[in-house]
Amino acid sequence: MRLLDRLTAPGDLKTYSYDQLDQLAAEIRQEIIHTVAQNGGHLAPNLGVVELTIALHRVYNSPIDQIIWDVGHQSYTHKLLTGRRDSFFSLRQYGGISGFPKPEESIHDAFATGHSSTSISAALGMAKARDLNHEDRQIVAVIGDGSITGGMALEALNHTGHLKANLTVVLNDNEMSIAPNVGALSTYLSSLRTDPGYFKFKTDLQYLLSKIPLVGMRLAKTVENMKDAFKYMLVPGIFFEELGFTYLGPIDGHNIQKMCRVLTEAQNIKGPVLVHVVTKKGKGYKPAEKAPESFHSVGPFDLQTGQRKQKRGLSFTDCFAKAILEEAKRDSKIVAITAAMAEGTGLSAFAAKFPERFFDVAIAEQHAVTFAAGLAAKGMKPVVAVYSTFLQRAYDQIVHDVALENLPVVFAIDRAGLVGPDGPTHHGMFDLSYLRSIPNLVIFSPKDGPELADMLYTAFRLEQPVAIRYPKAKTVKGLEYSARKYITPGKAEVLAIGKHVNILAEGIMVERASELRAELAKEGIDSGVVNIRSIKPLDEKLIINLAQSAPLVTVENNTISGGLGSAVLEVLAKGEILQKVKTLGLPNTFVGSGNCDNLYQEVGLDVATLLITIKQFLGLLCIVPEVAAE
Amino acid sequence: MRLLDRLTAPGDLKTYSYDQLDQLAAEIRQEIIHTVAQNGGHLAPNLGVVELTIALHRVYNSPIDQIIWDVGHQSYTHKLLTGRRDSFFSLRQYGGISGFPKPEESIHDAFATGHSSTSISAALGMAKARDLNHEDRQIVAVIGDGSITGGMALEALNHTGHLKANLTVVLNDNEMSIAPNVGALSTYLSSLRTDPGYFKFKTDLQYLLSKIPLVGMRLAKTVENMKDAFKYMLVPGIFFEELGFTYLGPIDGHNIQKMCRVLTEAQNIKGPVLVHVVTKKGKGYKPAEKAPESFHSVGPFDLQTGQRKQKRGLSFTDCFAKAILEEAKRDSKIVAITAAMAEGTGLSAFAAKFPERFFDVAIAEQHAVTFAAGLAAKGMKPVVAVYSTFLQRAYDQIVHDVALENLPVVFAIDRAGLVGPDGPTHHGMFDLSYLRSIPNLVIFSPKDGPELADMLYTAFRLEQPVAIRYPKAKTVKGLEYSARKYITPGKAEVLAIGKHVNILAEGIMVERASELRAELAKEGIDSGVVNIRSIKPLDEKLIINLAQSAPLVTVENNTISGGLGSAVLEVLAKGEILQKVKTLGLPNTFVGSGNCDNLYQEVGLDVATLLITIKQFLGLLCIVPEVAAE
Repeated sequence: MRLLDRLTAPGDLKTYSYDQLDQLAAEIRQEIIHTVAQNGGHLAPNLGVVELTIALHRVYNSPIDQIIWDVGHQSYTHKLLTGRRDSFFSLRQYGGISGFPKPEESIHDAFATGHSSTSISAALGMAKARDLNHEDRQIVAVIGDGSITGGMALEALNHTGHLKANLTVVLNDNEMSIAPNVGALSTYLSSLRTDPGYFKFKTDLQYLLSKIPLVGMRLAKTVENMKDAFKYMLVPGIFFEELGFTYLGPIDGHNIQKMCRVLTEAQNIKGPVLVHVVTKKGKGYKPAEKAPESFHSVGPFDLQTGQRKQKRGLSFTDCFAKAILEEAKRDSKIVAITAAMAEGTGLSAFAAKFPERFFDVAIAEQHAVTFAAGLAAKGMKPVVAVYSTFLQRAYDQIVHDVALENLPVVFAIDRAGLVGPDGPTHHGMFDLSYLRSIPNLVIFSPKDGPELADMLYTAFRLEQPVAIRYPKAKTVKGLEYSARKYITPGKAEVLAIGKHVNILAEGIMVERASELRAELAKEGIDSGVVNIRSIKPLDEKLIINLAQSAPLVTVENNTISGGLGSAVLEVLAKGEILQKVKTLGLPNTFVGSGNCDNLYQEVGLDVATLLITIKQFLGLLCIVPEVAAE
Repeated sequence: MRLLDRLTAPGDLKTYSYDQLDQLAAEIRQEIIHTVAQNGGHLAPNLGVVELTIALHRVYNSPIDQIIWDVGHQSYTHKLLTGRRDSFFSLRQYGGISGFPKPEESIHDAFATGHSSTSISAALGMAKARDLNHEDRQIVAVIGDGSITGGMALEALNHTGHLKANLTVVLNDNEMSIAPNVGALSTYLSSLRTDPGYFKFKTDLQYLLSKIPLVGMRLAKTVENMKDAFKYMLVPGIFFEELGFTYLGPIDGHNIQKMCRVLTEAQNIKGPVLVHVVTKKGKGYKPAEKAPESFHSVGPFDLQTGQRKQKRGLSFTDCFAKAILEEAKRDSKIVAITAAMAEGTGLSAFAAKFPERFFDVAIAEQHAVTFAAGLAAKGMKPVVAVYSTFLQRAYDQIVHDVALENLPVVFAIDRAGLVGPDGPTHHGMFDLSYLRSIPNLVIFSPKDGPELADMLYTAFRLEQPVAIRYPKAKTVKGLEYSARKYITPGKAEVLAIGKHVNILAEGIMVERASELRAELAKEGIDSGVVNIRSIKPLDEKLIINLAQSAPLVTVENNTISGGLGSAVLEVLAKGEILQKVKTLGLPNTFVGSGNCDNLYQEVGLDVATLLITIKQFLGLLCIVPEVAAE
């Protein structure tokens, strides 16, 4: 019987010897590799934190103590240790357990995560709740070196230091190799900083620095890339120390005993503590160790070789990857921006071909969008390639920094609609709703790969912001090079007109609508199919015409609230097809400044104008004459 | 004739002596004080940067060189120096010049700003555009010490250092007093760092530190508050140096000659430079110097006394301020969070009364929301008080960290709808659209102060997230203490039912609708007025019933796209009142994980279910039988 199978609660770990814990780590690693080979999932990040997770659950008492996993895709070991060993086979499957922490699933999942850089904010909130309620519990946030550069993580560090909250942040640094000199420094720094005499030494930073001959050199070394820039500051911990944290580390993240010792020390330090742990992504599975990026998130694969099992057809992402290269070759003004997602968004080939025109800004979607706005303001043609749910992070920047000045930034929005196994934190089901009300923005949704390429071609020729949203899905058609077509904003593609009903669809729902048309025909129902293509502006004339001849059905891969269907209803109301409803409000343009009376008058929301509008509306319905006659 | 009146272009400044520039500064200060006393505006921030702006325009060549003003409310001197002296009297008035940089207004306004922390991102985009286009121009971002703690500013600093871009960030530090020791350190550091020999010294930070005896002490000083935490790191510039910036400062921000010298030096340094300038908010106008916070943004005031001219009635903000105090006295679980807006949002009294339950997180809306989620996850009842447009910054956090887990966070959303003189960057005209599609969220909109208090009372009793949106406006009714009423989500208030038309209104539009009712009655039109109150969920039954008896008009203080009107149309379509349209899509709930086929089937978007749905829809319209007979 495996040690893993004997485990009944995370507290059992306290009774295991360190040798047993190492054995447990090996068992867990096998369990994860086998399950992910079957179901797909985040392999490399999980293999990196097996020992760290064991150490955390040995030192802390979950669920009294709370562990918050930033991004949450590295929580598999945590799940195996906290009651989900028997359901682990169902990981990420329909009806199975989630690939992310989920409070409904277990009392040990302290906070739902899925997007980056949220853990310190949530942990600080929990820490203050504990203090206000006079409870006795430890709060730990585990965050990667990629996630800590996200703006909100830095905001949270800043606030945590200010509040001097009792809180431990474990920095899971999975890129730095554990070279002997770093290890020596680690030991040196750790012992120095956890030494009871440390706090008096701290009154003189110079003294501290003078004790560490390596630091001067390290600090002076050229900052080579962003992740390095952060790590660089980490080595002596100055960055965190200045923010009010006690810094412990770096520690070998695969040495359970060492981690347990340091985490226990952290518990005894007052105020915020940062424990810097160095781990290896993909640890223990050779193919993943060799290519941690491509094993970050994988579909099912062959255990022996690491080869993907599913033969991948051409996806929308692949089509974007080809199309953006094609456009960039023709126009040197085109630049591409990603927030740490070059591979996922299909920009790797672009990056290789045009390194000087490619910008990976790290996990920093807000900056990505305003950076793009700055580029566009000075004549460049930036495309921001980003997942639908992650673009939610930059909503204000789209409104305020791009749309307000009508800057020609192109948003290539991947993973729109349902994404499958990654679940609710990753479904891109809100973008039509949150983008549709933004003035000046064109929103395209392609039915297939070639149309995506046409839309990209078009977007670079429009002098305004354009969003192209497309799903995580294969596309029916290939993308051989042919002359790209210009897709006029506000012009839908009529695939068939129906006598009995017309289906207005967007994106992959167009294909589905065509299938429906065939099925409906079998029953004698003649249906039409319209590829809406341009969600904003809509083809108002067509919609009004169609509405007059047969009922309409809208089908969209977005939440039903505020999306395409809603836009079609607005058109019908505006076009007075829905004669019983009139919707009045501020226009869908930016409104200027001045006193509110003038502004409301300008937009027709003053009483006098409203009176005229309502009377006209009622007049159209032929009510006013009757009323007047009464 | 004033020097200001002789100025034809900012380039003229290069011909003025430093004495003349000081005289010009005095003239500008008078012009600003007089105009703002008349029109209202951001007084204290503008008085603080008169000399800095003059120095910038003397050293740089706008518009070839580009100056980006973070937040932008401190751009009055810039406007006066760049062709808007003669229109300055119209500042913030209807049809007049904007209180913020506006590219349409002048070629010298490099980028539109209004929200915080965007300038470095935009400047970096412009700097890279310059490099890619092989242009020769300088890019300068001017950012305050409050704004630089915003997450996206930190993301941008990180990326700028990584790219080693030629770019100058002027840190306008307007809180630190210019004590002699700081001045001495400033001079010392400045001369050291701009010395040609500096770069070889930089290879050994320890050497640098050893040269400055004060630094060790300063670094060790306890971090007392967040702004201090940042400044603290600024003093020796380590924070910026480690991010790849050359740090120059601190400089006296009211000494034009000194600033010109340092800015000129900055131009000759390769890579990013940070110039730390210390200014005094409200400088030169005694009442503003004494109370810079209350003179940050003011209405018209008396020049001699500084007294506000307008007698302020009771505003929605005042009602929130009273109501939150009242609730907090009754329930010790209530905590309040603001992002550097305690006074604007009405939380000052709460902060004074319950300091341990009040959190100002600095300009950090993203962190504010997830911090609140953490508090709510552990049993507290947080209210996040924030302006509508600033909450746009935290859209993802509302969706992902609050709504997904259905956490009871209350959003008190001030400045919803049009705000007046602050204009397009501050109109809260999108919140109904961006919030409405978020599952689990209740959205309230009060018609007056007492209703706002009732909604707040209710919100703390609901076990789910609640948004209450209210305008920058006076409210008709007072807020004497009386028993608070529970406002049932999804229940509208019918003020009158009309025979000829019913007006569904939200917020201050309810009052307007009542006025309309009176006007319409004069013409024999019997109109009804419904205070919608709960935008989400809507009172679907009422709306369907009313739609069957008379035409409906919706009136909202939000963009017409995706807001209340849209929601009403959705209800009518769902209720099959609009029999000609059926809208299908993902539900307005979070969708689980699993393969997409299962998920689409679950939500009814697979072909088989769609087929049934469409046939049922057509059947209701009595088309199917006819068709079948064909």
